[in-house]
Amino acid sequence: MDIVIIGSGNVAYHLAKSCSRSHVKIAQIFGRNDAELSKISKELGIPYSTETLADADCYLLAVSDHAVAEVSSRITKEDCLVAHTSGSLPVEELKGAYRKASFYPLQTFSRNREQDYSKIPFFIEAEYENDAEILKTLAGKISPHVFDSNFEKRKYIHITAVFACNFVNHLFARAQEISDAQDIPFSYFEPLIAETVNKIRELPPKDAQTGPAVRADHRVLELHEALLGGEHLAIYKTMNQSIKKMYDL
Amino acid sequence: MDIVIIGSGNVAYHLAKSCSRSHVKIAQIFGRNDAELSKISKELGIPYSTETLADADCYLLAVSDHAVAEVSSRITKEDCLVAHTSGSLPVEELKGAYRKASFYPLQTFSRNREQDYSKIPFFIEAEYENDAEILKTLAGKISPHVFDSNFEKRKYIHITAVFACNFVNHLFARAQEISDAQDIPFSYFEPLIAETVNKIRELPPKDAQTGPAVRADHRVLELHEALLGGEHLAIYKTMNQSIKKMYDL
Repeated sequence: MDIVIIGSGNVAYHLAKSCSRSHVKIAQIFGRNDAELSKISKELGIPYSTETLADADCYLLAVSDHAVAEVSSRITKEDCLVAHTSGSLPVEELKGAYRKASFYPLQTFSRNREQDYSKIPFFIEAEYENDAEILKTLAGKISPHVFDSNFEKRKYIHITAVFACNFVNHLFARAQEISDAQDIPFSYFEPLIAETVNKIRELPPKDAQTGPAVRADHRVLELHEALLGGEHLAIYKTMNQSIKKMYDL
Repeated sequence: MDIVIIGSGNVAYHLAKSCSRSHVKIAQIFGRNDAELSKISKELGIPYSTETLADADCYLLAVSDHAVAEVSSRITKEDCLVAHTSGSLPVEELKGAYRKASFYPLQTFSRNREQDYSKIPFFIEAEYENDAEILKTLAGKISPHVFDSNFEKRKYIHITAVFACNFVNHLFARAQEISDAQDIPFSYFEPLIAETVNKIRELPPKDAQTGPAVRADHRVLELHEALLGGEHLAIYKTMNQSIKKMYDL
Protein backbone atom coordinates (compact mmCIF):
# COMPACT_ATOMS: atom_id res chain seq x y z
CA MET A 1 0.00 0.00 0.00
CA ASP A 2 1.38 3.39 -1.02
CA ILE A 3 0.83 6.05 1.62
CA VAL A 4 1.20 9.81 1.17
CA ILE A 5 1.20 12.27 4.06
CA ILE A 6 -0.12 15.74 3.28
CA GLY A 7 1.02 18.60 5.50
CA SER A 8 4.25 20.00 6.94
CA GLY A 9 3.30 20.93 10.52
CA ASN A 10 3.89 19.17 13.84
CA VAL A 11 1.31 16.44 13.25
CA ALA A 12 2.58 15.71 9.72
CA TYR A 13 6.16 15.57 10.97
CA HIS A 14 5.44 13.23 13.88
CA LEU A 15 3.15 11.06 11.78
CA ALA A 16 5.88 10.68 9.17
CA LYS A 17 8.47 10.01 11.85
CA SER A 18 6.31 7.45 13.65
CA CYS A 19 5.70 5.62 10.35
CA SER A 20 9.41 5.72 9.62
CA ARG A 21 10.26 4.31 13.03
CA SER A 22 7.68 1.54 12.53
CA HIS A 23 9.07 0.66 9.09
CA VAL A 24 5.90 1.85 7.37
CA LYS A 25 7.04 3.22 4.03
CA ILE A 26 5.74 6.69 3.15
CA ALA A 27 5.78 7.26 -0.61
CA GLN A 28 5.73 11.04 -0.38
CA ILE A 29 5.18 13.95 1.95
CA PHE A 30 3.30 16.72 0.18
CA GLY A 31 2.55 20.32 1.12
CA ARG A 32 3.12 24.00 0.44
CA ASN A 33 6.01 24.80 2.78
CA ASP A 34 9.14 23.91 0.84
CA ALA A 35 11.56 24.73 3.67
CA GLU A 36 9.74 22.55 6.21
CA LEU A 37 9.15 19.67 3.80
CA SER A 38 12.77 19.73 2.72
CA LYS A 39 13.87 19.43 6.37
CA ILE A 40 11.47 16.57 7.09
CA SER A 41 12.42 14.83 3.85
CA LYS A 42 16.11 15.07 4.68
CA GLU A 43 15.69 13.87 8.25
CA LEU A 44 13.42 10.94 7.48
CA GLY A 45 14.52 10.02 3.96
CA ILE A 46 11.03 10.49 2.49
CA PRO A 47 10.55 12.08 -0.97
CA TYR A 48 8.61 15.33 -0.90
CA SER A 49 6.87 17.64 -3.30
CA THR A 50 5.14 21.01 -3.17
CA GLU A 51 3.75 20.60 -6.68
CA THR A 52 2.84 17.10 -7.79
CA LEU A 53 0.85 14.87 -5.47
CA ALA A 54 2.05 11.28 -5.89
CA ASP A 55 -0.36 8.55 -6.87
CA ALA A 56 -1.13 6.47 -3.77
CA ASP A 57 -3.60 4.05 -2.15
CA CYS A 58 -3.95 6.09 1.01
CA TYR A 59 -3.61 9.80 1.80
CA LEU A 60 -3.23 10.97 5.40
CA LEU A 61 -4.18 14.64 5.76
CA ALA A 62 -2.28 16.30 8.59
CA VAL A 63 -3.30 19.89 7.90
CA SER A 64 -5.19 22.49 9.96
CA ASP A 65 -8.90 21.80 10.38
CA HIS A 66 -9.83 24.84 8.30
CA ALA A 67 -7.71 23.61 5.36
CA VAL A 68 -9.11 20.06 5.25
CA ALA A 69 -11.99 20.79 2.86
CA GLU A 70 -9.90 22.76 0.38
CA VAL A 71 -6.83 20.51 0.43
CA SER A 72 -8.88 17.30 0.27
CA SER A 73 -10.80 18.64 -2.73
CA ARG A 74 -7.57 18.65 -4.71
CA ILE A 75 -7.27 14.84 -4.47
CA THR A 76 -8.97 13.95 -7.75
CA LYS A 77 -8.17 10.25 -7.65
CA GLU A 78 -11.28 8.17 -6.81
CA ASP A 79 -9.92 4.71 -6.07
CA CYS A 80 -8.15 5.59 -2.88
CA LEU A 81 -8.63 6.12 0.84
CA VAL A 82 -8.30 9.61 2.35
CA ALA A 83 -8.17 10.12 6.12
CA HIS A 84 -7.94 13.36 8.05
CA THR A 85 -6.26 13.52 11.48
CA SER A 86 -8.60 15.96 13.23
CA GLY A 87 -10.43 15.45 16.51
CA SER A 88 -13.10 17.94 15.56
CA LEU A 89 -14.14 17.19 11.99
CA PRO A 90 -16.55 14.62 10.59
CA VAL A 91 -15.25 12.43 7.74
CA GLU A 92 -17.71 14.30 5.49
CA GLU A 93 -15.43 17.32 5.72
CA LEU A 94 -13.30 15.50 3.16
CA LYS A 95 -14.39 16.71 -0.28
CA GLY A 96 -13.87 14.17 -3.03
CA ALA A 97 -15.12 10.98 -4.68
CA TYR A 98 -12.67 8.73 -2.77
CA ARG A 99 -13.37 6.62 0.32
CA LYS A 100 -13.25 8.74 3.50
CA ALA A 101 -11.90 8.14 6.97
CA SER A 102 -10.46 9.66 10.12
CA PHE A 103 -7.13 8.72 11.69
CA TYR A 104 -6.86 10.62 14.97
CA PRO A 105 -3.74 10.35 17.16
CA LEU A 106 -4.41 11.56 20.70
CA GLN A 107 -1.24 13.40 21.60
CA THR A 108 0.23 16.90 21.82
CA PHE A 109 2.90 17.31 19.18
CA SER A 110 5.71 19.82 19.48
CA ARG A 111 8.33 19.73 16.79
CA ASN A 112 11.54 19.05 18.64
CA ARG A 113 10.21 16.55 21.15
CA GLU A 114 11.21 12.92 21.05
CA GLN A 115 8.02 10.92 21.48
CA ASP A 116 7.32 7.35 22.43
CA TYR A 117 4.87 6.73 19.60
CA SER A 118 3.99 3.28 20.93
CA LYS A 119 2.06 4.94 23.76
CA ILE A 120 -0.20 7.07 21.55
CA PRO A 121 -3.87 6.02 21.27
CA PHE A 122 -5.21 6.13 17.71
CA PHE A 123 -8.92 6.56 16.95
CA ILE A 124 -10.15 5.24 13.63
CA GLU A 125 -13.35 5.87 11.70
CA ALA A 126 -14.05 4.93 8.09
CA GLU A 127 -17.04 4.82 5.76
CA TYR A 128 -16.26 1.17 4.97
CA GLU A 129 -15.32 -1.58 7.38
CA ASN A 130 -12.47 -2.72 5.15
CA ASP A 131 -10.92 0.74 5.23
CA ALA A 132 -11.21 0.84 9.02
CA GLU A 133 -9.25 -2.42 9.09
CA ILE A 134 -6.58 -1.00 6.77
CA LEU A 135 -6.13 2.07 9.00
CA LYS A 136 -6.20 0.01 12.21
CA THR A 137 -3.46 -2.21 10.80
CA LEU A 138 -1.45 0.88 9.90
CA ALA A 139 -1.94 2.51 13.33
CA GLY A 140 -1.24 -0.86 14.95
CA LYS A 141 2.28 -0.80 13.53
CA ILE A 142 2.92 2.47 15.40
CA SER A 143 1.09 1.70 18.65
CA PRO A 144 -0.88 -1.15 20.19
CA HIS A 145 -3.51 1.36 21.38
CA VAL A 146 -5.92 1.50 18.44
CA PHE A 147 -9.65 2.09 18.89
CA ASP A 148 -12.79 2.52 16.83
CA SER A 149 -14.27 5.96 17.01
CA ASN A 150 -16.91 8.12 15.42
CA PHE A 151 -17.34 11.86 15.17
CA GLU A 152 -19.53 12.10 18.29
CA LYS A 153 -16.97 10.32 20.42
CA ARG A 154 -13.98 12.02 18.80
CA LYS A 155 -15.38 15.46 19.62
CA TYR A 156 -15.54 14.59 23.30
CA ILE A 157 -12.10 12.98 23.24
CA HIS A 158 -10.79 16.25 21.82
CA ILE A 159 -12.59 18.38 24.43
CA THR A 160 -11.26 16.19 27.23
CA ALA A 161 -7.78 16.57 25.75
CA VAL A 162 -8.18 20.36 25.69
CA PHE A 163 -8.90 20.31 29.44
CA ALA A 164 -6.26 17.72 30.36
CA CYS A 165 -3.50 19.03 28.12
CA ASN A 166 -3.98 22.48 26.52
CA PHE A 167 -5.49 24.11 29.61
CA VAL A 168 -3.07 22.33 31.93
CA ASN A 169 -0.16 23.66 29.89
CA HIS A 170 -1.66 27.15 30.01
CA LEU A 171 -1.90 26.91 33.82
CA PHE A 172 1.80 26.06 33.86
CA ALA A 173 2.48 29.12 31.66
CA ARG A 174 0.46 31.42 33.94
CA ALA A 175 2.04 29.85 37.04
CA GLN A 176 5.47 30.55 35.61
CA GLU A 177 4.52 34.18 34.99
CA ILE A 178 3.65 34.52 38.67
CA SER A 179 6.85 32.88 39.91
CA ASP A 180 9.07 34.67 37.36
CA ALA A 181 7.69 38.05 38.50
CA GLN A 182 8.92 37.23 42.03
CA ASP A 183 12.27 35.78 40.92
CA ILE A 184 11.19 32.36 42.10
CA PRO A 185 12.72 29.68 39.82
CA PHE A 186 9.95 27.68 38.17
CA SER A 187 12.12 24.57 38.59
CA TYR A 188 11.14 24.60 42.30
CA PHE A 189 7.72 23.38 41.16
CA GLU A 190 8.90 20.39 39.13
CA PRO A 191 8.54 17.81 41.92
CA LEU A 192 5.10 19.23 42.78
CA ILE A 193 3.98 19.00 39.16
CA ALA A 194 5.39 15.48 38.83
CA GLU A 195 3.55 14.35 41.96
CA THR A 196 0.31 16.02 40.83
CA VAL A 197 0.39 13.88 37.69
CA ASN A 198 1.76 10.69 39.24
CA LYS A 199 -0.89 10.78 41.93
CA ILE A 200 -3.80 10.47 39.53
CA ARG A 201 -2.48 7.16 38.21
CA GLU A 202 -3.51 5.68 41.56
CA LEU A 203 -6.16 8.06 42.81
CA PRO A 204 -9.05 9.53 40.75
CA PRO A 205 -8.30 13.27 40.44
CA LYS A 206 -11.55 14.08 42.21
CA ASP A 207 -10.20 12.27 45.30
CA ALA A 208 -6.73 13.78 44.98
CA GLN A 209 -7.79 17.45 45.23
CA THR A 210 -5.80 19.56 47.69
CA GLY A 211 -5.44 23.33 48.16
CA PRO A 212 -7.30 26.22 49.77
CA ALA A 213 -10.56 25.95 47.79
CA VAL A 214 -11.31 22.32 48.67
CA ARG A 215 -10.39 23.09 52.31
CA ALA A 216 -12.81 26.06 52.08
CA ASP A 217 -9.96 28.18 53.45
CA HIS A 218 -11.52 31.59 52.80
CA ARG A 219 -8.70 33.53 54.44
CA VAL A 220 -6.13 32.13 51.99
CA LEU A 221 -8.50 32.53 49.03
CA GLU A 222 -8.97 36.21 49.89
CA LEU A 223 -5.23 36.71 50.51
CA HIS A 224 -4.45 35.24 47.07
CA GLU A 225 -7.17 37.22 45.30
CA ALA A 226 -5.76 40.43 46.76
CA LEU A 227 -2.34 39.57 45.26
CA LEU A 228 -3.59 38.66 41.77
CA GLY A 229 -4.92 40.68 38.87
CA GLY A 230 -5.92 40.38 35.21
CA GLU A 231 -6.12 36.88 33.75
CA HIS A 232 -4.49 35.37 36.85
CA LEU A 233 -7.37 36.60 38.95
CA ALA A 234 -9.97 35.54 36.38
CA ILE A 235 -8.53 32.00 36.32
CA TYR A 236 -8.20 31.94 40.12
CA LYS A 237 -11.87 32.81 40.61
CA THR A 238 -13.24 30.50 37.92
CA MET A 239 -11.22 27.49 39.07
CA ASN A 240 -12.03 27.98 42.74
CA GLN A 241 -15.72 28.40 41.99
CA SER A 242 -15.63 25.17 40.02
CA ILE A 243 -13.80 23.36 42.84
CA LYS A 244 -16.36 24.60 45.37
CA LYS A 245 -19.22 23.39 43.18
CA MET A 246 -17.65 19.98 42.62
CA TYR A 247 -17.40 19.36 46.36
CA ASP A 248 -20.64 21.17 47.37
CA LEU A 249 -18.75 23.76 49.42
CA MET B 1 17.55 18.12 69.65
CA ASP B 2 14.11 16.86 70.67
CA ILE B 3 11.49 17.45 67.98
CA VAL B 4 7.72 17.20 68.35
CA ILE B 5 5.30 17.23 65.44
CA ILE B 6 1.86 18.68 66.15
CA GLY B 7 -1.00 17.59 63.89
CA SER B 8 -2.48 14.38 62.50
CA GLY B 9 -3.32 15.28 58.90
CA ASN B 10 -1.52 14.60 55.62
CA VAL B 11 1.27 17.09 56.20
CA ALA B 12 1.92 15.88 59.76
CA TYR B 13 1.96 12.26 58.58
CA HIS B 14 4.36 12.86 55.68
CA LEU B 15 6.57 15.12 57.77
CA ALA B 16 6.83 12.42 60.44
CA LYS B 17 7.46 9.77 57.81
CA SER B 18 10.11 11.82 56.00
CA CYS B 19 11.90 12.43 59.32
CA SER B 20 11.68 8.73 60.12
CA ARG B 21 13.11 7.80 56.73
CA SER B 22 15.94 10.28 57.24
CA HIS B 23 16.74 8.91 60.71
CA VAL B 24 15.62 12.14 62.37
CA LYS B 25 14.14 11.10 65.70
CA ILE B 26 10.72 12.54 66.49
CA ALA B 27 10.10 12.57 70.26
CA GLN B 28 6.32 12.75 69.97
CA ILE B 29 3.47 13.35 67.58
CA PHE B 30 0.74 15.34 69.28
CA GLY B 31 -2.82 16.20 68.29
CA ARG B 32 -6.52 15.74 68.91
CA ASN B 33 -7.38 12.84 66.62
CA ASP B 34 -6.60 9.72 68.64
CA ALA B 35 -7.47 7.28 65.84
CA GLU B 36 -5.20 8.98 63.30
CA LEU B 37 -2.33 9.53 65.73
CA SER B 38 -2.52 5.94 66.87
CA LYS B 39 -2.20 4.75 63.25
CA ILE B 40 0.75 7.06 62.54
CA SER B 41 2.40 6.10 65.81
CA LYS B 42 2.06 2.41 65.04
CA GLU B 43 3.33 2.73 61.48
CA LEU B 44 6.30 4.93 62.26
CA GLY B 45 7.14 3.86 65.81
CA ILE B 46 6.74 7.37 67.21
CA PRO B 47 5.12 7.96 70.64
CA TYR B 48 1.94 10.01 70.48
CA SER B 49 -0.35 11.87 72.83
CA THR B 50 -3.65 13.69 72.61
CA GLU B 51 -3.24 15.11 76.12
CA THR B 52 0.25 15.95 77.26
CA LEU B 53 2.58 17.82 74.94
CA ALA B 54 6.13 16.53 75.43
CA ASP B 55 8.93 18.86 76.42
CA ALA B 56 11.05 19.53 73.32
CA ASP B 57 13.56 21.89 71.68
CA CYS B 58 11.59 22.25 68.50
CA TYR B 59 7.89 22.00 67.65
CA LEU B 60 6.76 21.60 64.06
CA LEU B 61 3.14 22.65 63.63
CA ALA B 62 1.46 20.76 60.81
CA VAL B 63 -2.11 21.89 61.41
CA SER B 64 -4.62 23.83 59.29
CA ASP B 65 -3.82 27.52 58.83
CA HIS B 66 -6.86 28.56 60.85
CA ALA B 67 -5.73 26.46 63.82
CA VAL B 68 -2.14 27.74 63.97
CA ALA B 69 -2.81 30.69 66.30
CA GLU B 70 -4.87 28.71 68.78
CA VAL B 71 -2.72 25.56 68.81
CA SER B 72 0.54 27.52 68.99
CA SER B 73 -0.77 29.54 71.93
CA ARG B 74 -0.92 26.33 73.96
CA ILE B 75 2.87 25.91 73.80
CA THR B 76 3.76 27.64 77.07
CA LYS B 77 7.44 26.72 77.06
CA GLU B 78 9.61 29.74 76.17
CA ASP B 79 13.05 28.29 75.49
CA CYS B 80 12.16 26.48 72.32
CA LEU B 81 11.70 26.93 68.58
CA VAL B 82 8.22 26.67 67.03
CA ALA B 83 7.78 26.49 63.26
CA HIS B 84 4.56 26.33 61.27
CA THR B 85 4.40 24.60 57.88
CA SER B 86 2.05 26.98 56.06
CA GLY B 87 2.68 28.74 52.76
CA SER B 88 0.25 31.51 53.61
CA LEU B 89 0.98 32.57 57.17
CA PRO B 90 3.61 34.94 58.58
CA VAL B 91 5.70 33.62 61.47
CA GLU B 92 3.91 36.17 63.68
CA GLU B 93 0.79 33.98 63.44
CA LEU B 94 2.51 31.82 66.06
CA LYS B 95 1.30 33.01 69.46
CA GLY B 96 3.77 32.46 72.27
CA ALA B 97 6.97 33.64 73.93
CA TYR B 98 9.17 31.09 72.09
CA ARG B 99 11.36 31.67 69.01
CA LYS B 100 9.28 31.57 65.81
CA ALA B 101 9.89 30.14 62.37
CA SER B 102 8.37 28.71 59.23
CA PHE B 103 9.23 25.31 57.73
CA TYR B 104 7.36 25.04 54.42
CA PRO B 105 7.58 21.89 52.29
CA LEU B 106 6.43 22.54 48.71
CA GLN B 107 4.52 19.40 47.84
CA THR B 108 0.98 18.03 47.59
CA PHE B 109 0.44 15.43 50.27
CA SER B 110 -2.16 12.69 49.98
CA ARG B 111 -2.20 10.12 52.71
CA ASN B 112 -1.58 6.86 50.93
CA ARG B 113 0.98 8.07 48.44
CA GLU B 114 4.59 6.95 48.61
CA GLN B 115 6.69 10.08 48.15
CA ASP B 116 10.30 10.65 47.24
CA TYR B 117 10.96 13.13 50.04
CA SER B 118 14.46 13.88 48.76
CA LYS B 119 12.89 15.81 45.87
CA ILE B 120 10.82 18.17 48.01
CA PRO B 121 11.97 21.82 48.24
CA PHE B 122 11.84 23.22 51.79
CA PHE B 123 11.52 26.95 52.46
CA ILE B 124 12.83 28.20 55.79
CA GLU B 125 12.27 31.44 57.67
CA ALA B 126 13.18 32.17 61.28
CA GLU B 127 13.35 35.19 63.56
CA TYR B 128 16.96 34.32 64.41
CA GLU B 129 19.73 33.24 62.06
CA ASN B 130 20.74 30.40 64.35
CA ASP B 131 17.23 28.96 64.23
CA ALA B 132 17.20 29.20 60.45
CA GLU B 133 20.40 27.13 60.45
CA ILE B 134 18.83 24.54 62.78
CA LEU B 135 15.81 24.15 60.51
CA LYS B 136 17.92 24.10 57.36
CA THR B 137 20.03 21.32 58.84
CA LEU B 138 16.85 19.42 59.72
CA ALA B 139 15.31 19.91 56.26
CA GLY B 140 18.68 19.07 54.72
CA LYS B 141 18.47 15.60 56.19
CA ILE B 142 15.22 15.02 54.29
CA SER B 143 16.08 16.76 51.01
CA PRO B 144 19.03 18.62 49.47
CA HIS B 145 16.63 21.31 48.20
CA VAL B 146 16.51 23.78 51.10
CA PHE B 147 16.03 27.51 50.59
CA ASP B 148 15.67 30.69 52.59
CA SER B 149 12.28 32.28 52.33
CA ASN B 150 10.18 35.01 53.83
CA PHE B 151 6.45 35.56 54.01
CA GLU B 152 6.32 37.71 50.85
CA LYS B 153 8.06 35.05 48.80
CA ARG B 154 6.25 32.14 50.45
CA LYS B 155 2.86 33.64 49.53
CA TYR B 156 3.79 33.70 45.85
CA ILE B 157 5.30 30.21 46.00
CA HIS B 158 1.97 29.04 47.40
CA ILE B 159 -0.06 30.85 44.73
CA THR B 160 2.13 29.41 41.97
CA ALA B 161 1.62 25.97 43.50
CA VAL B 162 -2.15 26.48 43.50
CA PHE B 163 -2.02 27.13 39.73
CA ALA B 164 0.50 24.40 38.89
CA CYS B 165 -0.93 21.72 41.17
CA ASN B 166 -4.38 22.34 42.69
CA PHE B 167 -5.92 23.84 39.54
CA VAL B 168 -4.18 21.33 37.29
CA ASN B 169 -5.63 18.49 39.36
CA HIS B 170 -9.06 20.09 39.15
CA LEU B 171 -8.76 20.27 35.35
CA PHE B 172 -8.02 16.54 35.40
CA ALA B 173 -11.13 15.99 37.56
CA ARG B 174 -13.33 18.05 35.20
CA ALA B 175 -11.77 16.37 32.16
CA GLN B 176 -12.60 12.98 33.63
CA GLU B 177 -16.22 14.06 34.18
CA ILE B 178 -16.46 14.88 30.47
CA SER B 179 -14.91 11.60 29.31
CA ASP B 180 -16.80 9.48 31.87
CA ALA B 181 -20.11 10.93 30.66
CA GLN B 182 -19.28 9.62 27.15
CA ASP B 183 -17.95 6.25 28.33
CA ILE B 184 -14.47 7.22 27.20
CA PRO B 185 -11.89 5.64 29.55
CA PHE B 186 -9.82 8.38 31.19
CA SER B 187 -6.78 6.10 30.85
CA TYR B 188 -6.73 7.04 27.13
CA PHE B 189 -5.42 10.43 28.23
CA GLU B 190 -2.51 9.20 30.34
CA PRO B 191 0.14 9.43 27.58
CA LEU B 192 -1.16 12.89 26.64
CA ILE B 193 -0.96 14.07 30.25
CA ALA B 194 2.50 12.55 30.67
CA GLU B 195 3.74 14.30 27.52
CA THR B 196 2.16 17.62 28.58
CA VAL B 197 4.25 17.53 31.73
CA ASN B 198 7.42 16.02 30.27
CA LYS B 199 7.45 18.64 27.53
CA ILE B 200 7.81 21.59 29.91
CA ARG B 201 11.05 20.17 31.29
CA GLU B 202 12.63 21.12 27.96
CA LEU B 203 10.34 23.81 26.61
CA PRO B 204 8.93 26.79 28.59
CA PRO B 205 5.16 26.15 28.86
CA LYS B 206 4.47 29.40 27.02
CA ASP B 207 6.30 27.94 23.99
CA ALA B 208 4.68 24.53 24.34
CA GLN B 209 1.06 25.69 24.01
CA THR B 210 -1.09 23.71 21.56
CA GLY B 211 -4.86 23.47 21.03
CA PRO B 212 -7.65 25.38 19.34
CA ALA B 213 -7.32 28.67 21.27
CA VAL B 214 -3.66 29.30 20.43
CA ARG B 215 -4.40 28.33 16.81
CA ALA B 216 -7.30 30.84 16.93
CA ASP B 217 -9.48 28.04 15.58
CA HIS B 218 -12.85 29.71 16.15
CA ARG B 219 -14.86 26.92 14.52
CA VAL B 220 -13.57 24.36 17.04
CA LEU B 221 -13.94 26.79 19.96
CA GLU B 222 -17.59 27.34 19.03
CA LEU B 223 -18.18 23.63 18.47
CA HIS B 224 -16.80 22.86 21.94
CA GLU B 225 -18.73 25.67 23.64
CA ALA B 226 -21.96 24.32 22.15
CA LEU B 227 -21.23 20.91 23.72
CA LEU B 228 -20.34 22.18 27.19
CA GLY B 229 -22.37 23.63 30.04
CA GLY B 230 -22.08 24.68 33.69
CA GLU B 231 -18.61 24.80 35.20
CA HIS B 232 -17.10 23.06 32.15
CA LEU B 233 -18.21 25.96 29.98
CA ALA B 234 -17.10 28.56 32.53
CA ILE B 235 -13.62 27.02 32.67
CA TYR B 236 -13.52 26.62 28.88
CA LYS B 237 -14.26 30.30 28.31
CA THR B 238 -11.94 31.65 31.01
CA MET B 239 -8.99 29.52 29.95
CA ASN B 240 -9.39 30.29 26.26
CA GLN B 241 -9.71 34.00 26.93
CA SER B 242 -6.51 33.85 28.96
CA ILE B 243 -4.72 31.90 26.20
CA LYS B 244 -5.85 34.46 23.61
CA LYS B 245 -4.59 37.34 25.77
CA MET B 246 -1.24 35.67 26.43
CA TYR B 247 -0.57 35.33 22.70
CA ASP B 248 -2.26 38.60 21.62
CA LEU B 249 -4.86 36.77 19.54
